[in-house]
This record gives sequence, structure tokens and C-alpha cells, in this order.
Amino acid sequence: MDDPVLLTGAGGRVGRAILAGIGEAYDWRLLDREPLAAERLPAGVTTEDVVVADVTDEEAVRRAVDGVGAVVHLAGDPRPNAPWDSVLANNIDGTRTVLAAAVDAGVDRFVFASSNHAVGAYETEDRTPDMYRKDDEFRLNGSELPRPSNLYGVSKATGETLGRYYHDHHDLSVACVRIGNLTKGHPPREYERGQAMWLSHRDCAHLFDRCLAADYEYEIVYGISDNDRKYYSIERAREALGYDPQDNSAAYTFGGEPKEEAEPDSA
Amino acid sequence: MDDPVLLTGAGGRVGRAILAGIGEAYDWRLLDREPLAAERLPAGVTTEDVVVADVTDEEAVRRAVDGVGAVVHLAGDPRPNAPWDSVLANNIDGTRTVLAAAVDAGVDRFVFASSNHAVGAYETEDRTPDMYRKDDEFRLNGSELPRPSNLYGVSKATGETLGRYYHDHHDLSVACVRIGNLTKGHPPREYERGQAMWLSHRDCAHLFDRCLAADYEYEIVYGISDNDRKYYSIERAREALGYDPQDNSAAYTFGGEPKEEAEPDSA
Repeated sequence: MDDPVLLTGAGGRVGRAILAGIGEAYDWRLLDREPLAAERLPAGVTTEDVVVADVTDEEAVRRAVDGVGAVVHLAGDPRPNAPWDSVLANNIDGTRTVLAAAVDAGVDRFVFASSNHAVGAYETEDRTPDMYRKDDEFRLNGSELPRPSNLYGVSKATGETLGRYYHDHHDLSVACVRIGNLTKGHPPREYERGQAMWLSHRDCAHLFDRCLAADYEYEIVYGISDNDRKYYSIERAREALGYDPQDNSAAYTFGGEPKEEAEPDSA
Repeated sequence: MDDPVLLTGAGGRVGRAILAGIGEAYDWRLLDREPLAAERLPAGVTTEDVVVADVTDEEAVRRAVDGVGAVVHLAGDPRPNAPWDSVLANNIDGTRTVLAAAVDAGVDRFVFASSNHAVGAYETEDRTPDMYRKDDEFRLNGSELPRPSNLYGVSKATGETLGRYYHDHHDLSVACVRIGNLTKGHPPREYERGQAMWLSHRDCAHLFDRCLAADYEYEIVYGISDNDRKYYSIERAREALGYDPQDNSAAYTFGGEPKEEAEPDSA
């Protein structure tokens, strides 16, 4: 990709994982509602490449997408327990604002940070905790209808549907990544569910790299490492995007000694 | 159902079809943003049973759901080309307002008017016009992900997802009816697509009657008559709800003489 890539929500946990892994592989434009510390910017990115704006500010978003070839849209209220008014404005209306501006600017590709919370209610009392364990065969693969855990999850499912609409009606490739449990260093301990949907920082950056490089139309994929425990299939991410994860929560749970504390995230 | 049924958007086309068919079968409370003409009210319904309010008015909605056993939620901007700000406020936020008020009031059942526009982009150039014809076997059955025709369709898909969330987290049965092409009298002429998704007034009233009477958890069904031409399956409506449609657009297209002009609707 020769044109710059706009990364919204660049200062959040997912944005930092992406920039730490592939910060030097693209020409970034970064957007966040808070200023980003200069020492956190990847090599080659200066404060001139940073737009401080809210994604609900249509004019600012239109300026931010001008001239970019792709958008990685992470911005939004990341709290699973966020109230409706916040996810309605920041996540639903905000995502629509970025999508509409992107297609108007002729952007080719839109990568959307969806969430495991879009499908959390598949984790029924009947299925849990068995579904979190290695021998259980239950899998979600991205073709299932949403069953949100919370209103945040509703907003993420709506972002996926908005992406589908803009893909079908405009020349825009859209990848929606239902991000699992992103933690730095090692998977959560004593938390089977988090181990089953663990996404390492390395695999996260690689997955978004593939979303920026692969050829596809519209995809919904799960963003988890290649964990022994899993109830999200990563087959579609492998096939459609060439995702090739290197990490597995089992290596930590049953083996190596963690070097640093997990930094939990529930994007 | 002994408790009253709240019908929102009662003055719209779908509401009028329902009240014309099953207006005397339930104890109705009617809500509309416009006053309803007294002569249009079903027998037994007085202007005291009519609430004139917008579904985005949370206090009015809370008063309207108080004491009802079920809600049939039709209200919203019905225009397929409605602008985003209107469907965001009236259809997405409005539906969430009614759902939240309903669960807080202990309502058991919520019937949601979704739309064919939630899935209109399955009608691709490759599939059309073949999919509109009798011998074509393509079917949507309600388990597929949304592919909206327009932002109105995005709002209807979001209403379905909100219904899923409130069903999964509260004791609320939810039926989402993806309404086809509702016309009074006879199906559209010279419009294959409209004939394939035709819903007669009689079948519409019967389908909503079944949504108020059957036992179910969460359902997405298609609301069309038993047309020879079809690309929406009505099997799930038959199985889950006991839907038994009496009309078929083929009877008009190839047979009987229409008695009155079609009144097109694109709910």
C-alpha cells in the first residue's frame, strides 16, 4: 500500500499493539481524540501525521481520510458496559461517519475492529464452561448472526452491518475483525474464557497487516491466536486473509513462565 | 393474551393492515406520532386508548408500555431512502427505547417490523431477475447475515440485533418479521420482484396474530404470502409460529381480475 493508512483510535490498546508490530510497514496517519505522546509514535510518524479529533466530528473525519488508501477503524467507546447513548454516538454514528467519509474520498479498503462482544451470548449456560476447553468442538465461524453480550456488542454488530452496506454499494473492501482477548506478554491466568479467545500482540499486528495486504471483498473473521482452547474458528482468517498466527495460549498456561503481567483488554 | 397489546406506528400501512384484520381480537393500546382518526379505530378502541407520541420520547414510551403484555413495534421512519440521521434517531434509537421500556415494564413479548431491505443486497446482478421467478431455487431463510439495501435496511437489521440482545438478557420473546411488499387488494403488476415478496393484507394480519399467540424464543421470519415466485422461505414462519398464508401472487398475476388498485408499501 503506497497511500497512507488512517488508523483511528490509534492511542487505544489495539492501536498500540498494531503500531508496535507494523508501525514501520506503512505510511500512517493517526487519529485519536487525545493527543498521542511523541515518544509512542512509530519511526517516521511525526506529530504532523496525528489528527486529534472525535470520530463524530464529520468535518475533521473528512479531512483525515483525504488522500488515504485504507482506513483501520478502531475508534469508539471500548467499554463493554458503556451506556447506550455513548455507543450510539461514538460507535454506531461514529463508524457510519468514517465509512461515509471513506467512500466519498475514494478509499479502497476499510478494516473494522469488531469484538467478541458481538457474539458473547452464544456462551450460554448449557455450553459453558465446556466450550472454553480444548476438546470441545463448538465453533463460531463468522457466518452466524450476532448475539451481543451487551449494548457495546450491539454497536459492534451494527458496525459490521454498516460495513456490509458500504461494501455492497460502493467499491470498498471491508474486513471486520471480532477481536478476542488482547493481552500483552502472556494470556490471562485462571481465566479459561480469556485463554480460549486470547490474541497476542504479535498475532494482532500480523492479522491487521493481512487485512491491509490481502485481496478480499467483505469478511468477518475472528481475531484470536492459534489457541488449543478455542470456540472461534480462525479458518476463514487463514483462507481469506492469509492469517498465520504464531501464538497459542496453551504454551503459557501449561508451559513457559510469564515474563510480565497481562494487560487485559476487552476490545 | 389478556393484557393489552401496544401497537406502535398504528397509523401506518402495516398497522392499518393489522387492525383491519385482527383489530377485534386483542385489547389494543395504539401509539402514533400523529392523532388517529376515530373512524379508523377498531371496535372497542376509543381515543383514550391512543397515545400520540414519538418513540424517541422515552417518558411517553414508558407510560405507553405500562401494563401491556406485548408490544408490536412498527413505528419508525418507513422510507427506504430515509437519511441516516432519521433512521439513527427514529429506527435505531427509537427501537432501543421501546425495547428497554418494555423489559423494564415486564412485557413478555415483542414483535418487531423488520424489512426486506435488511437483506436487499442479496439481490445481486448475477441472481436477478432469475431469483424473482418461479423455478429459481434461491432462498433466504432468516439465518443469513444482513445485507441491507440502504441505511433504512441497516436500521432494521440493527433492530433485529437489539431484539436479540434483549431476548438473551431478559425474559422477552422476540419475533422479527422481515416484511415483504405489502399491498392492499392485489399484488403489484409488471413488477416481478414485488410479486415474489408480496404480502397480502389478510396474510399480514394473520402473521402478526401468530406472532402474538405462538410460543417462541427469538425468531427472524419472512413476511410474504405463499407466492409461487419467492426467494424468501416461509418455512420458519410456518414451523415456529404456525403461519398459514392464504394468498399467492400467482393467482392474481395469471388469473383473477384485480378489484382495486394496489397500494404499494415498502415497509
